[in-house]
Amino acid sequence: MLVETTHPGNIGAAARAMKNMGVSRLYLVKPRMFPDEKAIWRSASAEDVVHGATVVETLEEALQGCHLIIGTSARDRRIPWPMLNPRACGEKIVAEHNNGHEVAIVFGREAHGLKNEELQKCHFHVNIPTGESYSSLNLGMAVQVIAYEILQSSLHQSSGSSQESPVGPSEDQPWDMEYADAEAMEHFFTHLEQTLIQVEFHDPENPRQLLTRLRRLFNRIRMDQMEVNILRGFLTSVNKLANKMKIPPG
Amino acid sequence: MLVETTHPGNIGAAARAMKNMGVSRLYLVKPRMFPDEKAIWRSASAEDVVHGATVVETLEEALQGCHLIIGTSARDRRIPWPMLNPRACGEKIVAEHNNGHEVAIVFGREAHGLKNEELQKCHFHVNIPTGESYSSLNLGMAVQVIAYEILQSSLHQSSGSSQESPVGPSEDQPWDMEYADAEAMEHFFTHLEQTLIQVEFHDPENPRQLLTRLRRLFNRIRMDQMEVNILRGFLTSVNKLANKMKIPPG
Repeated sequence: MLVETTHPGNIGAAARAMKNMGVSRLYLVKPRMFPDEKAIWRSASAEDVVHGATVVETLEEALQGCHLIIGTSARDRRIPWPMLNPRACGEKIVAEHNNGHEVAIVFGREAHGLKNEELQKCHFHVNIPTGESYSSLNLGMAVQVIAYEILQSSLHQSSGSSQESPVGPSEDQPWDMEYADAEAMEHFFTHLEQTLIQVEFHDPENPRQLLTRLRRLFNRIRMDQMEVNILRGFLTSVNKLANKMKIPPG
Repeated sequence: MLVETTHPGNIGAAARAMKNMGVSRLYLVKPRMFPDEKAIWRSASAEDVVHGATVVETLEEALQGCHLIIGTSARDRRIPWPMLNPRACGEKIVAEHNNGHEVAIVFGREAHGLKNEELQKCHFHVNIPTGESYSSLNLGMAVQVIAYEILQSSLHQSSGSSQESPVGPSEDQPWDMEYADAEAMEHFFTHLEQTLIQVEFHDPENPRQLLTRLRRLFNRIRMDQMEVNILRGFLTSVNKLANKMKIPPG
């Protein structure tokens, strides 16, 4: 719900941010200019969200039938209210929604936010943390952050996964090739070592840490089978070249 | 870094989103219209970020000196690349930054995103999950989400709370060598390609996906400077051998 929005462009931006994150029910409380072509333009392909918006005169009307009301608040209030950060906000919204409850998130005016009496209708306030030098988020951006956290939470809760999923090809990510197994890696390291000796880059009499460093390097990537094949193909080409020179392999 | 941004308003929106989240260094690669008053207007009180932006002609210039490069990618690629979600992305960026590394986050064109060759310069790709019905985020909104996660992570990590830390030598672990920067990596890839051609392992007339796979392989390791030096030393030995055979370098 957007309360007394001044710039119609922000309504469009909010609509796009919502639709991008899979949220579609937009309430506009007393927008200054609406409908307006700027709202349509900024919404891009979320025109349907703009056209489907419910326009009402008062926040009370918009809140009818809602079970959980969360208001966005930038400022510290004189009387502290139960606060959520955006992440906790997303989690709470998804949990309540999954329980069949109607949830409203209320965004205030561009310049002044929500009034105290509006904030006091809310069960929780949500505050988006900011850097110190500039704390005033654009309205559409604030909607984006909250909608993003709602989607995150919904993906998270529905996947049942326990935590922020990690990184790297090595873990749970889809990959196009099978990983090389230990044997393939040992063959690769042997081939690499022989070739390094053959081209006289590596002196086995004075090994220093060369092979250790190369093992650390290639083991830390988790190479897939095709990558091992490519590198061994390259080494074989080098071997052939060296054999023509009649340098015996090391 | 914003690559070939079409609408100056998006530059302003990105600048505001950055400053709101405590981030200030903006690089613009070949923006279509810049400077432009729409960029200033949309930046609101982040004018200083817009005025301080570094404008360059190529992504290579922008990436000079960077140790970790993360590119935003909407699409599934034919060859999967190591992926981060925005949260893991924020965590990685803050961890690397705290270790004194230069980090770049690269955002593509409004209509077409980043090109394949740009994406292949990246160690990781980050994808912002979206709802099914509309997956194309506005550029400023994408910057907002990533910048938001950077700030979240920085608040989180500085509060000393324990972190599900991802993977790899690259992050919070002590390492004995400095990471290779973007320029060193490009020199390495060029040297590797020339050598592959020289030993007739790689046919530039029929490249298939060989170089893409090698870029993915070596970018995902995050090589340190000594490792790059070792591999280049090996390539140089191969070059010398081939030169004795009078095979011209590719």
